[in-house]
Amino acid sequence: MEQEQKPESQLEKELKNIYTIQKELSIIGYTAALVDWDQKTYMPSEGIKSCSEKISYLSKIHHEKMISKELKDSIDYLLIPENFEKLNDKDRIVVKRLSKDVEKATKLPVEFKEELSRVTSIAESVWEEAKKEKNFEKFKPHLERIVELKKEEAKLINLPGHPYNSLLDDFEEWMTVDKLQPTFEFLGKELTGLLKKIVSTDVYKNQSEDLFKKRIFGKKSQEKLAHMLKKIMNMPERKSRLDVSMHPFTTTIGNKDVRITTRFINNPLESFGSTIHEGGHALYELGMPEEYADTTVYTAPSYGIHESQSKFWELIGKHESFWKYFYPKFKDTFKRQLKDVNFDEWYRLNNIVKPSYIRIEADELTYCMHIILRYEIEKGIMEGNIQVKDIPQIWNDKFEQMFGMRPRHDSEGCLQDTHWSGGAFGYFPSYALGTIYSAQLYNQLVKENPETLKEIEQGRFDNTVSWLRDKVHKYGRSLTADEIITKACGEGLNPEAWVKFLHDKYSKIYNF
Amino acid sequence: MEQEQKPESQLEKELKNIYTIQKELSIIGYTAALVDWDQKTYMPSEGIKSCSEKISYLSKIHHEKMISKELKDSIDYLLIPENFEKLNDKDRIVVKRLSKDVEKATKLPVEFKEELSRVTSIAESVWEEAKKEKNFEKFKPHLERIVELKKEEAKLINLPGHPYNSLLDDFEEWMTVDKLQPTFEFLGKELTGLLKKIVSTDVYKNQSEDLFKKRIFGKKSQEKLAHMLKKIMNMPERKSRLDVSMHPFTTTIGNKDVRITTRFINNPLESFGSTIHEGGHALYELGMPEEYADTTVYTAPSYGIHESQSKFWELIGKHESFWKYFYPKFKDTFKRQLKDVNFDEWYRLNNIVKPSYIRIEADELTYCMHIILRYEIEKGIMEGNIQVKDIPQIWNDKFEQMFGMRPRHDSEGCLQDTHWSGGAFGYFPSYALGTIYSAQLYNQLVKENPETLKEIEQGRFDNTVSWLRDKVHKYGRSLTADEIITKACGEGLNPEAWVKFLHDKYSKIYNF
Repeated sequence: MEQEQKPESQLEKELKNIYTIQKELSIIGYTAALVDWDQKTYMPSEGIKSCSEKISYLSKIHHEKMISKELKDSIDYLLIPENFEKLNDKDRIVVKRLSKDVEKATKLPVEFKEELSRVTSIAESVWEEAKKEKNFEKFKPHLERIVELKKEEAKLINLPGHPYNSLLDDFEEWMTVDKLQPTFEFLGKELTGLLKKIVSTDVYKNQSEDLFKKRIFGKKSQEKLAHMLKKIMNMPERKSRLDVSMHPFTTTIGNKDVRITTRFINNPLESFGSTIHEGGHALYELGMPEEYADTTVYTAPSYGIHESQSKFWELIGKHESFWKYFYPKFKDTFKRQLKDVNFDEWYRLNNIVKPSYIRIEADELTYCMHIILRYEIEKGIMEGNIQVKDIPQIWNDKFEQMFGMRPRHDSEGCLQDTHWSGGAFGYFPSYALGTIYSAQLYNQLVKENPETLKEIEQGRFDNTVSWLRDKVHKYGRSLTADEIITKACGEGLNPEAWVKFLHDKYSKIYNF
Repeated sequence: MEQEQKPESQLEKELKNIYTIQKELSIIGYTAALVDWDQKTYMPSEGIKSCSEKISYLSKIHHEKMISKELKDSIDYLLIPENFEKLNDKDRIVVKRLSKDVEKATKLPVEFKEELSRVTSIAESVWEEAKKEKNFEKFKPHLERIVELKKEEAKLINLPGHPYNSLLDDFEEWMTVDKLQPTFEFLGKELTGLLKKIVSTDVYKNQSEDLFKKRIFGKKSQEKLAHMLKKIMNMPERKSRLDVSMHPFTTTIGNKDVRITTRFINNPLESFGSTIHEGGHALYELGMPEEYADTTVYTAPSYGIHESQSKFWELIGKHESFWKYFYPKFKDTFKRQLKDVNFDEWYRLNNIVKPSYIRIEADELTYCMHIILRYEIEKGIMEGNIQVKDIPQIWNDKFEQMFGMRPRHDSEGCLQDTHWSGGAFGYFPSYALGTIYSAQLYNQLVKENPETLKEIEQGRFDNTVSWLRDKVHKYGRSLTADEIITKACGEGLNPEAWVKFLHDKYSKIYNF
């Protein structure tokens, strides 16, 4: 009997269209990721001009496709209630998320984006010089212009509530100042308190990091350990790479091609730590839901959730249980260098708390304090309560208040990070959110699988990776950050877990 | 005084348009080159699907742009005689070449190209199996279909004269069977004769290559020598790279970013030889005319001319003078392995003639014989005088006649090369044309600069590189292959220079 073939309905046609366009967007995005990866790893220096042209062109055709009438028309058709209700769950999520993306992409006029890109591209190189020269005045007019533009952007995006919400949204969909403020207030107070306790202990006063200054840790051996770590974390060679770049990063070149980088300085904890951090990001990317491949749902719902994965593995990578497995491997690799370093000393070296001016050099405990400081200044700027010219003074005052020391110049103060020169306002909170989430996830994992630490002591990470896949990775952007955390941990964002974790850990190390 | 700004004329507008589109085509092309390079060097194996999608997408948007009405309209406008005569020389060349490209791109219907791509993609994997199994019958129906399609393609392209001309044109613009036939007839006869002389000498009968089978030549040391060679050939780190891939190749990722690859087996002459070969290609790419950057003229006028550059450097890299400089470096690097190998023995090892079944393993002298055999079969196929089913028999007969030995099975006969399975008919002649041109260029260079060999003995290649830039590289595709060779050497394609070069060289080595 012949099967009668039904003609394709309008609904099917429009649905097919949005998937086809998303596929193209995905290909363009992966291609841009490859160009970017190449620039940071292997590109000969004079390839830079052609590289920038590739990136600009790919971003141009990506944007054109995103704001195309063709895509908008299909989405509009699918959003009509009588059509929408005919869709299955997966299609509904995709249509909803895509609709949000398209709406957002059309909110900023091309001229505005070009002006922002022009201004930040100049500001970035001025910032580099200003930082070198410790000269905030040089950077000031550029930052003022950027702030003007970001305020304009917030108006154009125009989300409800605090104007900062509209900038946060680029990094933390659905996050608001209302939710952040009490979280960061609590966290800031607690961490400042903890730090005060630590610096007054005898252990703190006698601690030293001289080991890494006085002994040579060869690059080849560090590389071997990084690859060992990558392997044990479940990142197979056939789907991932580990290369070297000036700043470590993770990038996704295809849904089965995720690459991380590291860098080698003398201190082997640097490359090892960055590998475990980027490895956390990479595992997340490798764990995205296949059924959403090449859609806008095949990604993290927020930078904070992404960071929760790297921070989770950082937490593991500083854990006593972790080193029970890995320190013998370090000793094997660096026989001579670590001959006289026992486990306790090594564990202590891995968990030194020491307030520093520079965020990217911060220890596990003080890291979020750096973030909260930046958040408060960004929020103040967006409220109009802080003027650019006053940033150095405000920064240094706040810093002194929190860290008990005052930056000696702006290059170890408000000039240290590149974010503002690139216009990335609203980005910093993600780092702290990721840290908080990571502790919540860690607590939950240990509760659900009390064998976790024992497994880690034996170098077995399978159950841990599976758990993360099941609780976080597999959702992609089909759930919000808050939904994922609530579903996994039984409650939403809560900084208490992180504070308690730090207190329990460091009261033992610093003996208070 | 204020300068009055003239409004942009129609001519200026159309001209600007073709340059803008060429710029985009160039960016797309360089991006595809990067994706391809990545696949062959660093890509994790499961990245292949995403990689193919990137390549397909880039090739699709490239083609769409190429056959766009927008481009065609501008070209048509500029080709109107009264407009064309207002153009400067550079613009005229660009418009003429681009017009030819566009015309050609529109000759093959999309459906035809898709069918060819579908058929060859299956045929390529069948060919791999067939070659493994030494089973021509398995590959036969696929090759038959490919031949049908290539005949159809020749009709669609429809250049004057022999039907093979239309296929040659993909690789050798303006080359025809009328020109090739007497050249290859002469060359085939002469090389066959030379080979007969050589194999009858005592030197030939006693020659041995055992050295490379019995001694270990480490990869790291080979790599060091390859980088030394690359440097001395004038390929700066800031514009080029040397990586490892299964098959060595050269690729251009941007006009200041040209990359070559090599591979390391035990015989160090393999990596060294492939580096000098690809280095020749890369120097050409790096020497393209800046004023034509991002146009269709910023390329070689033919594969043969491109190959002339790699073959030129291969010729140098087997030269006695070259080894006077480089053999001491080899001895330094492989002290133990080459302790008892003197210069004459090394030079002999570099210039062994030995007929072999496999083209890519062929020596300098017999290489073109392999090409001529393939050319004759391809031509016969296109004339309808050779049927696919008869290829093995014809191949083996011809081979025996030329080389004095008969393939034992088709995997060392007509199944050895991938070209036909990919539909690349008309490609092989370029290899021999490049070889012939290289000898003509070499003769001319030595005539113009009699110090050349002395310079090479001292490891100085600056003048040689400059000469090649001046005589070949700088023209890009603004001249035809024939114009370049005629301008440089005072005559067009002439195989006599190559035959004489081989005769002079090998009569000394083989003492006849």
